[in-house]
Amino acid sequence: MLVYLNGQFLSKDTAHLSVDDRGFVFGDGVYEVWRVIRGRVFEPDRHFSRLQRGLRALHIDAPVEVSMERLGEIAARLLSENDLLGGEATFYLQVTRGAAPRTHYFPPEGTRATVYASVKAFVPPEETRVRGVRAITVPDTRWLRCDLKTVQLLPNVLANQQARAAGAFDAIFIRDDLITESTHASLFGVLDGVLRTHPANHLVLPGITREVILELARDLGLPIDEHAIPARDIARLEELFLAGTTTDVTPIVQLDGVHIGDGVPGAITRSLYAGLKERLYGREAARAAIDAPRNGVVTR
Amino acid sequence: MLVYLNGQFLSKDTAHLSVDDRGFVFGDGVYEVWRVIRGRVFEPDRHFSRLQRGLRALHIDAPVEVSMERLGEIAARLLSENDLLGGEATFYLQVTRGAAPRTHYFPPEGTRATVYASVKAFVPPEETRVRGVRAITVPDTRWLRCDLKTVQLLPNVLANQQARAAGAFDAIFIRDDLITESTHASLFGVLDGVLRTHPANHLVLPGITREVILELARDLGLPIDEHAIPARDIARLEELFLAGTTTDVTPIVQLDGVHIGDGVPGAITRSLYAGLKERLYGREAARAAIDAPRNGVVTR
Repeated sequence: MLVYLNGQFLSKDTAHLSVDDRGFVFGDGVYEVWRVIRGRVFEPDRHFSRLQRGLRALHIDAPVEVSMERLGEIAARLLSENDLLGGEATFYLQVTRGAAPRTHYFPPEGTRATVYASVKAFVPPEETRVRGVRAITVPDTRWLRCDLKTVQLLPNVLANQQARAAGAFDAIFIRDDLITESTHASLFGVLDGVLRTHPANHLVLPGITREVILELARDLGLPIDEHAIPARDIARLEELFLAGTTTDVTPIVQLDGVHIGDGVPGAITRSLYAGLKERLYGREAARAAIDAPRNGVVTR
Repeated sequence: MLVYLNGQFLSKDTAHLSVDDRGFVFGDGVYEVWRVIRGRVFEPDRHFSRLQRGLRALHIDAPVEVSMERLGEIAARLLSENDLLGGEATFYLQVTRGAAPRTHYFPPEGTRATVYASVKAFVPPEETRVRGVRAITVPDTRWLRCDLKTVQLLPNVLANQQARAAGAFDAIFIRDDLITESTHASLFGVLDGVLRTHPANHLVLPGITREVILELARDLGLPIDEHAIPARDIARLEELFLAGTTTDVTPIVQLDGVHIGDGVPGAITRSLYAGLKERLYGREAARAAIDAPRNGVVTR
């Protein structure tokens, strides 16, 4: 597997980080994940803008390769040389404040940020998108800058593992009795016929798929309310779904062991998934992909 | 500089981490820092217990070298070969969940945790301990498991840098109008003659020096109250000081530009610093070290 590290393309097993890397020592960095479909990067600009915003917030000087053009070239070469231009893939990029003797304050000027990029084959698990998944709720113990896509991900790791141990697909964070998001996706619910999601403030990641879903919902004329869903309203939810770069639209049909709505993916979730598929794959491809498996599930 | 990484002693510039290390990708690990004085490790057991507790909380299987005995041997060899047995030093240990393909949930069983250890010469900046330092307050945006010594340290990094940019020594976190601690030390204040510090709950690190200071305060018969100091009482504080492994007792004489007490280190702070020095260096050494510089400052 060819990866990119600090200006070099090299085999992953020879791509090495310093033990002084501030990513390792402090979790001092940001990352992005782009979806790539047959070599075409999905929403490249939005992910790039979010990355730039994160670098600015952390006061990390954007290294020279962090430009749309150069990142596009890096992604293209990694996809090509790893033979991932034909199917689906993800492009991962991580930028940390670089390697320097350990001090909490920033390292000396001129310390080069670490830039690591890799690609991975991605197979959308169509079944979970169509049938829906189980999830659990956990307290949201994360820090108060969840709007930044940093590698401060230990609470996400622990919550996701807790979900997995419980036989669930993901864990939903609850802070101050409000649903925020999941360990690595945005969360949408339908309550009283209105599409609800947490406002894009400091407590949730401004998800790119979240934005796309909101656009699709507007196009569909759905009523939208960007106010968090209170935990006490979970029992009343008509629909609930995850939205993310590798999650697409994934319906949650059971939360903490209790059915959501009828216990099957709802109509709004399904239309938004159909819309997202069009954006991802184009109209014809999406229709073909959706029609086949859906029938088997939604009608029970 | 010789360091230890996953069973090997090697030169730091040849000690390399995988780009898949979960420390780098998720901040998925814990660390410890021990103070070493002429080859003698200070409070080895307490640091070790805290490390074990952190590993358990994160469900990281303690690697074979994480035993008091083996860590002692690693520290001894690093100190010896790096010629640090004569003076003061710190021994740094970091354990992450190891290197594995990126998934939020835990990697497959059998994935070896990463164990990294290093030593560094340490010169206690006596002047800051004696004269005191300036600090600033910042909102405590950290996650809700600050009792674990993890590498989720980005908020600490940003706050410490903010302090430095403001010409201050450290930043004091305020959460819900209460003082928690600083970016890398515990915080004590004296209010109405009572020694105050945040209770050792999930919002602060259970500092080893914090524990030692509480023991010393009990020995001195000082009234102690483990209740956080409200931000609104900062103006009334008689004394304020940091306590930590590399911070010792460092008086804060100015906070956000306002003098604490008389603007010089107070009597309780000084006695506790004297007591800590005895614990660190032994009675005679401590006395000799303290007497000389103190006179010049405290009497103004």
